[in-house]
Amino acid sequence: MAVFPSPRPLSAVLLFALLPIGAWFILRPQLEPVPPIPALHASFGFSIFAFVASLYLVPALGPTFVKANLKGKDLLKIYNTPIPESIGLVCSSIYIITLLLFIPFAFSDSLSKFAHAQHPQKTQEGISVPEFPHQQLAVYLSSLLSLLIATLLGFLDDVFDIRWRHKLPIPIIASIPLLMVYYAERGNTHVVVPLPFRFLAGTLVNLGPLYYIYMSLLSTFCTNSINILAGINGSEVSQALIIAISVILNDLLYLPWSFGFRVPLHLLGSKAEVDVGGVWHAGMAYGSKELVERHLFSLYFMLPLVAVCSGFMYHNWYPARVFPGDTLCYVTGMAFAVVGIQAHFSKTLLLFFLPQIFNFILSCPQLFGLVPCPRHRVPRFDPDTNLLHPSKALFLKPPSRLSYLVLRVLATLRLTDLTVHPTNGMILEATNLTILNFFLLRFGPMNEKRLVQVLMCAQVSGSLLAFFIRYGLAGLLYDGDRR
Amino acid sequence: MAVFPSPRPLSAVLLFALLPIGAWFILRPQLEPVPPIPALHASFGFSIFAFVASLYLVPALGPTFVKANLKGKDLLKIYNTPIPESIGLVCSSIYIITLLLFIPFAFSDSLSKFAHAQHPQKTQEGISVPEFPHQQLAVYLSSLLSLLIATLLGFLDDVFDIRWRHKLPIPIIASIPLLMVYYAERGNTHVVVPLPFRFLAGTLVNLGPLYYIYMSLLSTFCTNSINILAGINGSEVSQALIIAISVILNDLLYLPWSFGFRVPLHLLGSKAEVDVGGVWHAGMAYGSKELVERHLFSLYFMLPLVAVCSGFMYHNWYPARVFPGDTLCYVTGMAFAVVGIQAHFSKTLLLFFLPQIFNFILSCPQLFGLVPCPRHRVPRFDPDTNLLHPSKALFLKPPSRLSYLVLRVLATLRLTDLTVHPTNGMILEATNLTILNFFLLRFGPMNEKRLVQVLMCAQVSGSLLAFFIRYGLAGLLYDGDRR
Repeated sequence: MAVFPSPRPLSAVLLFALLPIGAWFILRPQLEPVPPIPALHASFGFSIFAFVASLYLVPALGPTFVKANLKGKDLLKIYNTPIPESIGLVCSSIYIITLLLFIPFAFSDSLSKFAHAQHPQKTQEGISVPEFPHQQLAVYLSSLLSLLIATLLGFLDDVFDIRWRHKLPIPIIASIPLLMVYYAERGNTHVVVPLPFRFLAGTLVNLGPLYYIYMSLLSTFCTNSINILAGINGSEVSQALIIAISVILNDLLYLPWSFGFRVPLHLLGSKAEVDVGGVWHAGMAYGSKELVERHLFSLYFMLPLVAVCSGFMYHNWYPARVFPGDTLCYVTGMAFAVVGIQAHFSKTLLLFFLPQIFNFILSCPQLFGLVPCPRHRVPRFDPDTNLLHPSKALFLKPPSRLSYLVLRVLATLRLTDLTVHPTNGMILEATNLTILNFFLLRFGPMNEKRLVQVLMCAQVSGSLLAFFIRYGLAGLLYDGDRR
Repeated sequence: MAVFPSPRPLSAVLLFALLPIGAWFILRPQLEPVPPIPALHASFGFSIFAFVASLYLVPALGPTFVKANLKGKDLLKIYNTPIPESIGLVCSSIYIITLLLFIPFAFSDSLSKFAHAQHPQKTQEGISVPEFPHQQLAVYLSSLLSLLIATLLGFLDDVFDIRWRHKLPIPIIASIPLLMVYYAERGNTHVVVPLPFRFLAGTLVNLGPLYYIYMSLLSTFCTNSINILAGINGSEVSQALIIAISVILNDLLYLPWSFGFRVPLHLLGSKAEVDVGGVWHAGMAYGSKELVERHLFSLYFMLPLVAVCSGFMYHNWYPARVFPGDTLCYVTGMAFAVVGIQAHFSKTLLLFFLPQIFNFILSCPQLFGLVPCPRHRVPRFDPDTNLLHPSKALFLKPPSRLSYLVLRVLATLRLTDLTVHPTNGMILEATNLTILNFFLLRFGPMNEKRLVQVLMCAQVSGSLLAFFIRYGLAGLLYDGDRR
């Protein structure tokens, strides 16, 4: 039962409870006893502020966007009210300002030297990570530049309404700062060779310029794969949220915890259990300070991302009061690419994109012109029942032989449903090749809220599978526990 | 003689002549004999590309802007054709991409080590500046971040049409990256005390947090002072161009020239002549490697700025085919603030802003509400004669006593012209308090092209005066030749 989308209520108690908690986390590193990773406390505190800011600014700025003609009609509703579009711009502005204000806490000598002076013996006690190495600042700033370019280009896309074929390469422009600084800093371009191929290529192989191409392709994939799995309330932001939480969980495995616990890896099929915790162990980092730093870097980008996405999701949840626009997809996708590249776990990262990979492969026949691609491939809304049905692509001319073959294979795999001419057997229609239509085909028509819940379940299942592959099966392909 | 503003013609010969020249400058540092400052060659080469790009992309993208409703009517013309607005976005995008692609040339070890390996004896020969210090990369990137934020906010200003009172603090947000990295890098917050005050404060005084406030105020001033001296074809970009060229000329005085020449400082009132040139002298840097590096940093930002501004000006010149929008003012202003802060010559920089300072002070009564401030303060256009006349602010209610006093003083100084009630002596109207109206008052009505030429002459005279003050009179206030 769709209602007029008035802004969702916000509790004042929540606001007044969260602000002091955030402030405490930011101030905590200055107090005795200094925590083992002071910057992580500050990052968490800033994330709380980012959450509050996005929770309150998103509805407050909505009308301004509508006035500037940044608005859209919700295609899957019975009402016609203009909904503010491109609100991802608000989220990414908050996100980037948070990351900027965090700089002195992560990189300032004065703050961390203070901590050192108080605890000279601390450095002897295990892996202590009170600060980033100073030169890491350039890497951090280049990541911010990439995120900012993604924001700007995403917003330009919303304003100028760039056609999708033209916007595919946009993330490559956004990845220029990453690539340039990676080059200037003489970044590592070696990759570890999987065990079965070592007899051919040795343990490490230097990809050289190919590595840079790989990096920009990763940005392109992360960004566009979220952007094409869109169209229903909450779909973009829920994907980003679940991927970000998965990355955070993965990062946490590599931190030096002050208490010990065990990850029951034998349940995932591994031979040995892993003792996570203890200042020496630093979890899966096994004493590598570099790995700890990389995963801290990733946390510093992912914590505020989770914060702004949660705040935004509250207003974007069915029935949506605001739309993300391309800006949100670009920025979240770029944020994932940034941590995957800079913290060197791009393969693990891609595992968290399993639903997106599935959706992308499924979409290929439409993206590359084998099957007609309408402007919107969102499911079809039935205003009488409030249910969504798979939407269809119409063949205005008979499909080519290749298209015919591809569609037949997809139909056999039950990934699409074909409407065939009753007499001559020609394909007249095919359901649009997206994961959303696939869900509707397999589980039957459902309402929009249920569909986004199914999508979220798929995303969570994908992440669980990813952890299983990464920590269970990867031993078959790689020795050691590198990336 | 206004004509329909069809795009200005572009010569293909120019294009094909400039591209190989640009490419040669970029490749030159890789060739024997390696020039003394290889990165400067590359910067010059990139600037040529930036010039060509802005020359060709500005008219090419104009229609896209009009389609996205980013268009304006030229208030001072007889025709009504919509002119593309916010084209400064194109310029600043080119500018920022140029600065990004330049990173490996300025900061890469591999490129500069190559140069060193070929000329091990070169380092003994004088001040050799083959590369930036590695840690300067963070400073460079933070400057880029500030420029990018200025671009984004300028464009948002164009899209959302923010009221001018609300946009005054925007440059402070854009200066956050500068401030944060300055803090994280433990930037110097000492200033040299002028000679007459040394008995009070000593030679150096540490401003501490005040220095950070000074930096954000400098950004605010540079940005807004260009933005309020606007309204006629070519005014914004010509100011930026002349200031940028002045900064470049000042920078060139500090470089290690391979040939010697003398600056006839006695003509400017100085006692000693200065030998500029020679690898040891490095001009006004007098052997200080730090000063050379600072001014190189400034050149790397100013050369491409001059390039994109020149390309844009070709299309923005009377009668304008494109409008800059706030984006251009924000980005150029921020670029000046960046070099003034990072290269530590903010006082010299402010001297190049003399016409802007005059305009700002003159505008104050209107900016702070003493005199009514209409939305547009541009001169009034007379379509019959094609001449511009001073525009007037109307007093809907009688001015306060303070306003009356201020206006009387300004009228006595011949900075404004008052219309007074014939019987009771009340002020009914005052010409708007801008430098453009002041020119029209003093030199009589003129056409728009002539007015922008007068403005440019004022800007050039201001720069000449600035050089005289900096290198002639500054000896009275400061010893040595610091900043």
